[in-house]
Amino acid sequence: MDNKYHMNGGDDLKSYAKNSEYQKQLLGYSKKVMNELIQQQLDVGLNPHFDHCNPFRIADFGCSTGRNTYLAAQNIIEAVEQKYKSNEEDPQVPEFLVFFNDLVQNDFNTLFNYIHSNKPNYFGAGVPGSFHGRVFPKAFLHIAHSSMALLYLSRIPEEVKDRNSAAWNKGRIHYSCSGAAKEVEAAYSTQFRKDIEAFLDARAEELIPGGLMVIITLGILDGVLPSECSMGVNFSILGSCLEDMAKMGIISEEKLDSFNLPYYYTSHMELETLIKAHGCFDIARFEKLPTPFRQVVHDIQTVVLSIRAVTEGLFEEHFGKDVIEELFQRYAEKVGSHPVLYDDKYRTEASYFVFLKRKTDTSKPGT
Amino acid sequence: MDNKYHMNGGDDLKSYAKNSEYQKQLLGYSKKVMNELIQQQLDVGLNPHFDHCNPFRIADFGCSTGRNTYLAAQNIIEAVEQKYKSNEEDPQVPEFLVFFNDLVQNDFNTLFNYIHSNKPNYFGAGVPGSFHGRVFPKAFLHIAHSSMALLYLSRIPEEVKDRNSAAWNKGRIHYSCSGAAKEVEAAYSTQFRKDIEAFLDARAEELIPGGLMVIITLGILDGVLPSECSMGVNFSILGSCLEDMAKMGIISEEKLDSFNLPYYYTSHMELETLIKAHGCFDIARFEKLPTPFRQVVHDIQTVVLSIRAVTEGLFEEHFGKDVIEELFQRYAEKVGSHPVLYDDKYRTEASYFVFLKRKTDTSKPGT
Repeated sequence: MDNKYHMNGGDDLKSYAKNSEYQKQLLGYSKKVMNELIQQQLDVGLNPHFDHCNPFRIADFGCSTGRNTYLAAQNIIEAVEQKYKSNEEDPQVPEFLVFFNDLVQNDFNTLFNYIHSNKPNYFGAGVPGSFHGRVFPKAFLHIAHSSMALLYLSRIPEEVKDRNSAAWNKGRIHYSCSGAAKEVEAAYSTQFRKDIEAFLDARAEELIPGGLMVIITLGILDGVLPSECSMGVNFSILGSCLEDMAKMGIISEEKLDSFNLPYYYTSHMELETLIKAHGCFDIARFEKLPTPFRQVVHDIQTVVLSIRAVTEGLFEEHFGKDVIEELFQRYAEKVGSHPVLYDDKYRTEASYFVFLKRKTDTSKPGT
Repeated sequence: MDNKYHMNGGDDLKSYAKNSEYQKQLLGYSKKVMNELIQQQLDVGLNPHFDHCNPFRIADFGCSTGRNTYLAAQNIIEAVEQKYKSNEEDPQVPEFLVFFNDLVQNDFNTLFNYIHSNKPNYFGAGVPGSFHGRVFPKAFLHIAHSSMALLYLSRIPEEVKDRNSAAWNKGRIHYSCSGAAKEVEAAYSTQFRKDIEAFLDARAEELIPGGLMVIITLGILDGVLPSECSMGVNFSILGSCLEDMAKMGIISEEKLDSFNLPYYYTSHMELETLIKAHGCFDIARFEKLPTPFRQVVHDIQTVVLSIRAVTEGLFEEHFGKDVIEELFQRYAEKVGSHPVLYDDKYRTEASYFVFLKRKTDTSKPGT
């Protein structure tokens, strides 16, 4: 795996911890529907894996430094407790063990401090490692959860950095940047397919038969052009700032050409097709969540900080620490006068809520 | 819990990671005897908790940043695999899940990087929290392990810091310092008893009936005076350096009087008595390990760094960052001319290896 990126650690103004309000709102929207689905789908009293299990095991994949993960775990536990208590024949509630997974480079120290300071009513553990591979034993987890993590690709497709390929993304930093060839998007899409397959393969092994999985991810509406979404506009602006800096000799052109952001914004149709093709999970629900409230023009700083919390590590690793302040200053200046900040026509990204159930036939279809 | 101390993080010259050779040697000595005992005591084929368990769950309590913990986990897994393979009726080996526990202030980022870089053949997880309380669900662990961690008290007994108490330890930093009243040692001993009881209470709940626990701890030989051990001499010297600094006004006398090191060096007799009185564990083995090779005069720096790796955080928290370099420079000067570095008469500390088995009657006797 090439992926080494992670959110900004710590908890200062530039940290992911302080800049993940958007993600927090999404969890709020999903709480009610998740609870309903857990009541419907969790086979307490029907599946021996759930009866007298001790402890009930939950894992969050891509936890970062924990604020939203903590909330998500609380929401899941609340729903599971309710389900157990409603089983009249045996209303006993198990103990809970919650695993927080992210890449080994994630700031687990900050995560643990945060979780600990909240005195959770469950046992907690951190699990470092890429969720594109196995990080848990077989048939070990009862519920898996992943919020805003699957849009991170495990690697940048090679073709995008290859000057001899039709997918070479010269002078741009993402497939959504204005003017990018359609082959660039296709290369990203292929990588996303491989990543989703690897993710589902691993979770299919780790979840018990009948285990549940909640996925929340950021994508775009079906049929929308990536370059016309707000993220496409933002990445185009960030890219143009880097182009300006390359022209001034602050960074080299080669550096710019070899850099691409590892995000992929899937559509409802694409993700649903991939999950169905995989075959190990039944889709109990697939829906678009309401769009979170976003700060507008009067608070450009918040917009800049939230983009910075997620991307800074990537820019820093590739271009070096010295250019970061200048890059985000230039970005703040350019984005401040752009209609993307207030015009709804750019708001074509979509947050998807997906609720899956591990089929009880534990062999993978077609293998 | 008051305990917030932890080993020096990171992996530079002053880190615990680079200064734990002594502990590593102890694990080497214990490997053979531990393997023998696991073959004897692990009830594979006899206890349903071990049959087709998935995964086999091991926890290390007080893992610090991981070098020795990693070795210990390898040794345990090797022995358990051997035991499973020797079960002719069902030689299948389970997957392993190893939990690394330490205080929430421990440097888990360094731990995870180290474990990850060694590509272990097991699943790993970090569990933050004091091992003087519950950190795992009930009847969850198959084997618990703790090396060189139980000598850290959860808190300094109040009397030791109380000027109206006979146990007030004025001008000294430990009960082993030359001239300390016997009431000081008694107060430490009482705290140690409470801590061991809390540790055994928690592990008795977390281990399955028939689960095993390996404890390695540093103590002293039965009947030896603490002030005549090498650690007593070392702490007396460190204390006298602080006294010198108090006289020069570099630190205040009040600061010195309110500082005490939270270590307790138990004896064979004391620890065995406490475990028996607790009642939840059978003692399968209690023995003194060979004394690790120690660096002598020609390498004072190693001695200083190894004491510093363990104590620096405590001194820094109480006296502030500014005095640390001076304190250890003064210590290096004084200890360099002291016979403790080469005279065997001071080597009366002892490392104890204790192998316990959770009784299958899971209620605590007398409760």
